[in-house]
Amino acid sequence: MLSGGRTKIAELLKSTAFGTEVVVKGWVRTKRGNKNVAFIAVNDGSIIHNIQVVADVAKFDENLLKEITTGSCVKVAGTLVESLGSGQPVEIQASSIEIYGTADPETYPLQKKGHSLEFLREIAYLRPRTNTFGAVLRIRHAMAYAIHKYFNDHGFFYLHTPLITGSDAEGAGAMFGVTTLDLNDVPKTPEGAVDYSQDFFGKPCNLTVSGQLEGELGALALSQIYTFGPTFRAENSNTPRHLAEFWMIEPEVAFFELEDNMELAEDFLKYLIRYALDNCQDDLQFLAKMYDAELIDRLKFVVENDFVRLDYTEGIDILVRSGVKFEFPVSWGLDLQSEHERYLVERHFKKPVILINYPKEIKAFYMKQNDDGKTVRAMDVLFPKIGEIIGGSQREENLDKLRRRIEEVGVPEKDIWWYLDTRRWGSAPHSGFGLGFERLLLFVTGMGNIRDVIPFPRTPKNAEF
Amino acid sequence: MLSGGRTKIAELLKSTAFGTEVVVKGWVRTKRGNKNVAFIAVNDGSIIHNIQVVADVAKFDENLLKEITTGSCVKVAGTLVESLGSGQPVEIQASSIEIYGTADPETYPLQKKGHSLEFLREIAYLRPRTNTFGAVLRIRHAMAYAIHKYFNDHGFFYLHTPLITGSDAEGAGAMFGVTTLDLNDVPKTPEGAVDYSQDFFGKPCNLTVSGQLEGELGALALSQIYTFGPTFRAENSNTPRHLAEFWMIEPEVAFFELEDNMELAEDFLKYLIRYALDNCQDDLQFLAKMYDAELIDRLKFVVENDFVRLDYTEGIDILVRSGVKFEFPVSWGLDLQSEHERYLVERHFKKPVILINYPKEIKAFYMKQNDDGKTVRAMDVLFPKIGEIIGGSQREENLDKLRRRIEEVGVPEKDIWWYLDTRRWGSAPHSGFGLGFERLLLFVTGMGNIRDVIPFPRTPKNAEF
Repeated sequence: MLSGGRTKIAELLKSTAFGTEVVVKGWVRTKRGNKNVAFIAVNDGSIIHNIQVVADVAKFDENLLKEITTGSCVKVAGTLVESLGSGQPVEIQASSIEIYGTADPETYPLQKKGHSLEFLREIAYLRPRTNTFGAVLRIRHAMAYAIHKYFNDHGFFYLHTPLITGSDAEGAGAMFGVTTLDLNDVPKTPEGAVDYSQDFFGKPCNLTVSGQLEGELGALALSQIYTFGPTFRAENSNTPRHLAEFWMIEPEVAFFELEDNMELAEDFLKYLIRYALDNCQDDLQFLAKMYDAELIDRLKFVVENDFVRLDYTEGIDILVRSGVKFEFPVSWGLDLQSEHERYLVERHFKKPVILINYPKEIKAFYMKQNDDGKTVRAMDVLFPKIGEIIGGSQREENLDKLRRRIEEVGVPEKDIWWYLDTRRWGSAPHSGFGLGFERLLLFVTGMGNIRDVIPFPRTPKNAEF
Repeated sequence: MLSGGRTKIAELLKSTAFGTEVVVKGWVRTKRGNKNVAFIAVNDGSIIHNIQVVADVAKFDENLLKEITTGSCVKVAGTLVESLGSGQPVEIQASSIEIYGTADPETYPLQKKGHSLEFLREIAYLRPRTNTFGAVLRIRHAMAYAIHKYFNDHGFFYLHTPLITGSDAEGAGAMFGVTTLDLNDVPKTPEGAVDYSQDFFGKPCNLTVSGQLEGELGALALSQIYTFGPTFRAENSNTPRHLAEFWMIEPEVAFFELEDNMELAEDFLKYLIRYALDNCQDDLQFLAKMYDAELIDRLKFVVENDFVRLDYTEGIDILVRSGVKFEFPVSWGLDLQSEHERYLVERHFKKPVILINYPKEIKAFYMKQNDDGKTVRAMDVLFPKIGEIIGGSQREENLDKLRRRIEEVGVPEKDIWWYLDTRRWGSAPHSGFGLGFERLLLFVTGMGNIRDVIPFPRTPKNAEF
């Protein structure tokens, strides 16, 4: 039932039912052999490993065997037998082979030789067929599932915050406009302004940069919510760390103060990484072998260490006293760069770090103000190799303080009256944070470029497929 | 740990630890009482039921008690005691009460009287605090989790297909443009056309109407994938069934033919509805009582019946022979309206129906062509009350047939060369379907308007919050 008339290779490779008849369907990775026998490695995406199909040349039509080339899709029926030479415990002695689709070796781009990640990015529509992207996409799935499972198990409700927004209040970055107006002939008012009354929503709208503000509305009703959805930045940043479209996870919890928020972030990240270690060993080992020998040690480093918690001010002291010559000089009041964050994690503490109580000037308006008048109850979780992986805070729940801060930073009240209203009626202490999903995946997969951990990256001048 | 210093009401209501000291935090739904005692109903969103807090008036400051009004947020410490009168098995004898946030009865919109759904739509940012929307949002969470769990347990991989797309090939509906150009001053080429080279992606881009085409790329590499993400339609439809932004689930499976696809759809839908019956009883009972007395029977109807499977042609015959005077007359070649679908399900078969083999002219270009030259291997799953809940098909895997069909319907090959390439190299039979998440939720919650099953609806002239 629901098998599509085949057994998945992930199951076959665990089987010891030698002598049984099986059907496997998948794509040919390699074919080799001699005049008497052909060895065909077949992969179906269920696992990184191939199953070896052994075909007696005499039993099969010569032309059929010729058409079995790298990338072709086949259905193989045969006997499951113990394998000695294939690198896997089992192989299939083929009794029949059907070709679903050929792959002309003259044109098919994914021949068995290795390809550069740059080349594969250009053919992103085919790269899921490679070992590397099969591994990355399976890990991506496992992490997404672990996120949902963690929150469900802890009584959080998944809140779908809107993608199209008429408010620009969060100010987290440049936004994409969303419109149904004809750009060839934008309608104008008599005064010469864009006539947004003719646009779909009757006003200018954008793609969201964060679901947090709406997430707070949910938390102040359901206590514990999380978002997990696409998020957008229209920044012209062509770097290995930036995407114009990415996925973000934002839990928000009523009655949580900053300490609870730190507990949640640490427990959550450790759960996810333990989940990867427990469920993605084959794929992690492949990626470690191919790209990043220290990958698995780095994952264990996070799971096995308590996160250090310290004030931003102490962090700055440590960096200043270190005597290290950083590319970006460091002093109180400046935002930390990745090099500073990594120094604290990798060299000073040798543990993941949660830095708290940042200067209010470098953090968002909604963060809870400390009594010192200078800092806010922000928290950044810093990881080896990538620096900040989570940013969050306790939120300001006092209406008057929040209004003053909004005025200071210049957010018009008319844009977020509804957000302020949550502090007007039934306000409560609450906290939350954001985790960039692709940032997490860079850490878990060890890949170096964020374009290689999302199926179809969107970057400046690139929206292919 | 991770409790925020409180016990959730969902847990307390199941507890029999009478006499223990507990802390509860939440929002006041009602307060009543007399000179001697106040009864305060507190809700924290973890469950639809309130817990009753009993406060001896003499023990508390008079002004404090006065400020405990509907909508205010409180922390209550006290003793868990067995309850006789509150309608719940337990209540709290309060020893201390702290008010986190008041809610001025003169201004707070959600007083204890019932509110119309229309009014609540206008204050969508507050409606999660009502019983109705608490119930809907908890069910929404449960269904989203069940979807991920079902696919994970069956070896599907969650594929994040892109939201911003440079292709308009699926043709499922009108699209929103995505741009960083200044609409006040759209740059033009010397020839007077929009100069898209200055736009973020260097070409016109839109918000996706379906992840299916990219989903097929994934399925033809990983065998089994599903998408679950936001989808957009810029159609000016102000109806209880249309949203401009909604969430869609699209599984796609290599090696599945139409029969497998039907099995999957039936098994999947039954799993989801059984999950709701098993996990959301309190919320379902509330919604049944308030809005739709037949709700739970309708859910059981789906779980307990085998779905009828029949050809579109037979379905048309039944409708024609029925003698029923439909608003829309019915004949072979026409698409079915909801009234026709519901007749088949509710009156003729009294079972859910899967209708297959539709005329090719009313279905999408990518559906597998039958040998009769007239029909394609489409399938629609039809449910009581709402009609079509799932639409899907086996896909055309033959490159030549697909190209001819694309030419017939006028999709330029240059727009989907990458899609065609999957049939060029390693093609395979495959199938999939789409389930509108809000359509599912209309069915599961019994709500009548799609704007009431998504937190922040986007519709023509409406993108609030």
